[in-house]
Amino acid sequence: MTLSSLSSSAMSNGMLVSKTGSFCPIKDPRALHQESMFSYPGLLSKHSVLSKSLSVSANPANQQLFSTIKPPSMEQTPKLLSMIERRCYSLGTAKQPSFSVGVKFQLDDVIEAQQFDRDILNAIFEVAREMERIEKNSPGSQILKGYLMATLFYEPSTRTRLSFESAMKRLGGEVLTTENAREFSSAAKGETLEDTIRTVEGYADIIVMRHFESGAARRAASTASIPVINAGDGPGQHPTQALLDVYTIEREIGKLDGITVGLVGDLANGRTVRSLAYLLAKYQDVKIYFVAPDVVKMKDDIKDYLTSKGVAWEESSDLMEVASKCDVVYQTRIQRERFSERVDLYEEARGKYIVDASVMKVLQKHAVIMHPLPRLDEITVDVDGDPRAAYFRQAKNGLYIRMALLKLLLLGW
Amino acid sequence: MTLSSLSSSAMSNGMLVSKTGSFCPIKDPRALHQESMFSYPGLLSKHSVLSKSLSVSANPANQQLFSTIKPPSMEQTPKLLSMIERRCYSLGTAKQPSFSVGVKFQLDDVIEAQQFDRDILNAIFEVAREMERIEKNSPGSQILKGYLMATLFYEPSTRTRLSFESAMKRLGGEVLTTENAREFSSAAKGETLEDTIRTVEGYADIIVMRHFESGAARRAASTASIPVINAGDGPGQHPTQALLDVYTIEREIGKLDGITVGLVGDLANGRTVRSLAYLLAKYQDVKIYFVAPDVVKMKDDIKDYLTSKGVAWEESSDLMEVASKCDVVYQTRIQRERFSERVDLYEEARGKYIVDASVMKVLQKHAVIMHPLPRLDEITVDVDGDPRAAYFRQAKNGLYIRMALLKLLLLGW
Amino acid sequence: MTLSSLSSSAMSNGMLVSKTGSFCPIKDPRALHQESMFSYPGLLSKHSVLSKSLSVSANPANQQLFSTIKPPSMEQTPKLLSMIERRCYSLGTAKQPSFSVGVKFQLDDVIEAQQFDRDILNAIFEVAREMERIEKNSPGSQILKGYLMATLFYEPSTRTRLSFESAMKRLGGEVLTTENAREFSSAAKGETLEDTIRTVEGYADIIVMRHFESGAARRAASTASIPVINAGDGPGQHPTQALLDVYTIEREIGKLDGITVGLVGDLANGRTVRSLAYLLAKYQDVKIYFVAPDVVKMKDDIKDYLTSKGVAWEESSDLMEVASKCDVVYQTRIQRERFSERVDLYEEARGKYIVDASVMKVLQKHAVIMHPLPRLDEITVDVDGDPRAAYFRQAKNGLYIRMALLKLLLLGW
Repeated sequence: MTLSSLSSSAMSNGMLVSKTGSFCPIKDPRALHQESMFSYPGLLSKHSVLSKSLSVSANPANQQLFSTIKPPSMEQTPKLLSMIERRCYSLGTAKQPSFSVGVKFQLDDVIEAQQFDRDILNAIFEVAREMERIEKNSPGSQILKGYLMATLFYEPSTRTRLSFESAMKRLGGEVLTTENAREFSSAAKGETLEDTIRTVEGYADIIVMRHFESGAARRAASTASIPVINAGDGPGQHPTQALLDVYTIEREIGKLDGITVGLVGDLANGRTVRSLAYLLAKYQDVKIYFVAPDVVKMKDDIKDYLTSKGVAWEESSDLMEVASKCDVVYQTRIQRERFSERVDLYEEARGKYIVDASVMKVLQKHAVIMHPLPRLDEITVDVDGDPRAAYFRQAKNGLYIRMALLKLLLLGW
Repeated sequence: MTLSSLSSSAMSNGMLVSKTGSFCPIKDPRALHQESMFSYPGLLSKHSVLSKSLSVSANPANQQLFSTIKPPSMEQTPKLLSMIERRCYSLGTAKQPSFSVGVKFQLDDVIEAQQFDRDILNAIFEVAREMERIEKNSPGSQILKGYLMATLFYEPSTRTRLSFESAMKRLGGEVLTTENAREFSSAAKGETLEDTIRTVEGYADIIVMRHFESGAARRAASTASIPVINAGDGPGQHPTQALLDVYTIEREIGKLDGITVGLVGDLANGRTVRSLAYLLAKYQDVKIYFVAPDVVKMKDDIKDYLTSKGVAWEESSDLMEVASKCDVVYQTRIQRERFSERVDLYEEARGKYIVDASVMKVLQKHAVIMHPLPRLDEITVDVDGDPRAAYFRQAKNGLYIRMALLKLLLLGW
Repeated sequence: MTLSSLSSSAMSNGMLVSKTGSFCPIKDPRALHQESMFSYPGLLSKHSVLSKSLSVSANPANQQLFSTIKPPSMEQTPKLLSMIERRCYSLGTAKQPSFSVGVKFQLDDVIEAQQFDRDILNAIFEVAREMERIEKNSPGSQILKGYLMATLFYEPSTRTRLSFESAMKRLGGEVLTTENAREFSSAAKGETLEDTIRTVEGYADIIVMRHFESGAARRAASTASIPVINAGDGPGQHPTQALLDVYTIEREIGKLDGITVGLVGDLANGRTVRSLAYLLAKYQDVKIYFVAPDVVKMKDDIKDYLTSKGVAWEESSDLMEVASKCDVVYQTRIQRERFSERVDLYEEARGKYIVDASVMKVLQKHAVIMHPLPRLDEITVDVDGDPRAAYFRQAKNGLYIRMALLKLLLLGW
């Protein structure tokens, strides 16, 4: 990742990303001295209210260091940041991400997988790897001590909630939990989501929201003056799942460019595989196989999108052949609720593509099996002991990704 | 506030207030030395068990300082406290409320709005303002570190619960949460509230209770050896809402004497407006307007009470005229559940008095709109952007009031 | 307790207890130096991953101290431990249980009352008494700071949950709560308990599980790589209740050998009294009276077990006579749900044996009344004020026992 590409992509992407920020992981007090130049009207991050005040040296010699840099205009920003970047490198600090300096990352909210480009993904993954080291040195870190996260769940999702709450607590933060957030806006009382958010933002420093309506997370984020993370909004997005999936591939395979991925199971309804396909299109030379029962095939919008991005894809009905070629076989659950009365169709679809010992036999040595969990019998239990069964490690990676996002949203890069 | 009036009112009020306490915010070790005189049998606060042991100077010179003061009898207490007060002033400490000294405030429980007189209200508000400063310097304070609050909710009230839990955690305290406390005393098992309290008081340092039965909070408080805060007991009381309402008026208008308040909406059923009217009667030269649809007019008991206290009040059906005269327009939601089958009456009542742009046009520049939330459409959304729309600030003030109460009940003044 | 007997019993008991561990409460750095000898393959505690790395002196002189001790084989372990024990005593540390040294106790999971022998019970009780002192010095200890406990409750049990969560937080630990864990494995999604455990163990350091199926706790424990505590598994076990009952008897009566205990009420269905009878059989010269309505008499399996262990027992229908002879009268609730349609039988059974003022009159001065709570009217409220009414102290003891278990499982002895 180069900092200039990160900042310019943040600029072009825009909507859900603040217009600027302080990217340079500055540890040198001389550099900190210049922090004020990021804080002029119009370029303020929405979270600047949370910024810790940084003690600044009044040494005139230090002031000279950056004396040629003037407050940037909107248009100048990418260029300026490129300048800063060079300064960072010249100060020898740019390659050392700092976890103690309270400078803001440019991330304001986490709403949908599409908001992340390749550079931001890399930056998040870099922090996630740092989080792995923190978590392994349990009993925990304290970098988020005093921060409060509200888990505002309009429908229960214990797995996702516990993962976020563990992430917050592993970093020393605290949690306000509600799994019956519907009560806030019950039919009887009829409060709007916006009013609820305005109340909750008075109690917490960050909101993690699960909602039953697509688009709810975006509405919450545009209302809130504190960061909002979308923990799933109905048929819409579940961006932290998408992030942990890509992170897991990188951790397991060691790269994202040039990989071959088989997406298996319910490809029509699974938002997981749809988001994953979308994110994989950001990488070079990716090949995707779709292996799905006829009734739940991958839809055309994703296929067209992949084609437009130059991603090679192919449909197949031969799981064994696909498994023998892939770096990653991403299995998913056939969701019974999609079949309503047609139990016969469900049973037929469900039994069609099972990852079992025979699949593992043809799977390459370096390849892995992934699954977003929970699973039924689409992966047989005897596969669990195989080191290539990556799905529980994948679930654990969700912890690191969420730790990284909480750190980035509350403390910055 | 003078300390003597505080103590004498505490004396006359009595029931829910401990019989004495240490009011003098003593920081001088010479003064602390005398703490023992507050701790003789019969005058012990119920929370004295929580008192931190205070290190006491054994300097004989200091002992002489208060040598003329003998352990007070019940009747002597106000006078004694007045003496102490003078000592405090002479020590130059009486105006500096201390947040580190573990001396008990005289507050044992928070059960109903009526338990607070003007001086206690002022004392609570003073601490609440201190809490505003603490919260703004997030990530949080640690004054309640190690203390445990049990939120014992017999019916869900996410808004109130989150507010209390945020308050506790903002001060470094911890929370045990239950929103299904009915399970404790389910019909099948039939445990009494008293037995439940005796169990829970073994697990926590303070209980915040929401119950569906009027009077439940008082029963809990009389059983518990730890402080109890009433977070609403059915049609009964919700004293922390009443406190935050009065606090908000003082913060927004700058005074409580001589104000004009319009209470609008469901005045028959809303316990909020009833408690607010009750508390406003404690201040001088208050004028109250009642603006309510016919079916939900303010009841005679409150009107009679106001009259007996010399508070001027008037009923009106002209919201515009009232709005033009008031410092505070307190709007409330018409509660549909009160109309059962008569949806026609509900719809008629509901649409009658709406705070919208036209009301804001006649509202004085310094005046504010308040609302206990949640709102439906009795305040239109376009009002939200007006700086005189105080209802979200009001909700936030609930946090400060609850922080103040937790601090006062657990650590004392 | 001698350490050698503790270790040898751990060996013979086996199944739920790790094969070895570090028992010596070593504070001397010379002794710590030898910790590595406990960490070779095959003797690793399942929790050794959590072990804090201990800084070890490289002083060759210290290495000589234990130079004659070689890595033990399985068979040598008891003997070795006996040797270590002597060393501990010679170092003058064996009698000082240390709460700061991260050495593991041999306890891996808490699954059923039968797993504890007399020595382990004594060890747990010793730590529980230490916990009483910690809790009394509220605001809390911090020995479990940074540790995360997941309360995975497949059925709600607010009392038990709050007790565990209070225990964890009193020691500075943090909690992830779920009371709707069934959602993890809902019929629709169909995840196995094993998969759920593999996910949750990635988020927490210890799991406290309540389940509706007998045997679920054992399955969870055999899957998890982190400690599991059974907080009740259906009609199966509730071992922490059994522990707190025995602990309470010891605290109240001062001994466990030679006591006389009356078990009263629903002896057929109450797992509490069945577990208690089982544990009492581990002590010398215990006499048990069973006082139960005909329909809910103690079953033969327990009677036979007691007989086989040489415990004297007797059935009686005269509560007054039994009460006059006992050290402990353990009253239980008649569970209505066991009688289905036969309300008449329930009412008859229920009213038969009531502990009231007349029973208290014949009860010996040193004796106590116990009850697992919640109670209905099988103990009348007027008994509560009698100092021999021990049931609320008993509930409080649950806190200490759970603090002790959390400490032992996470930090070791």
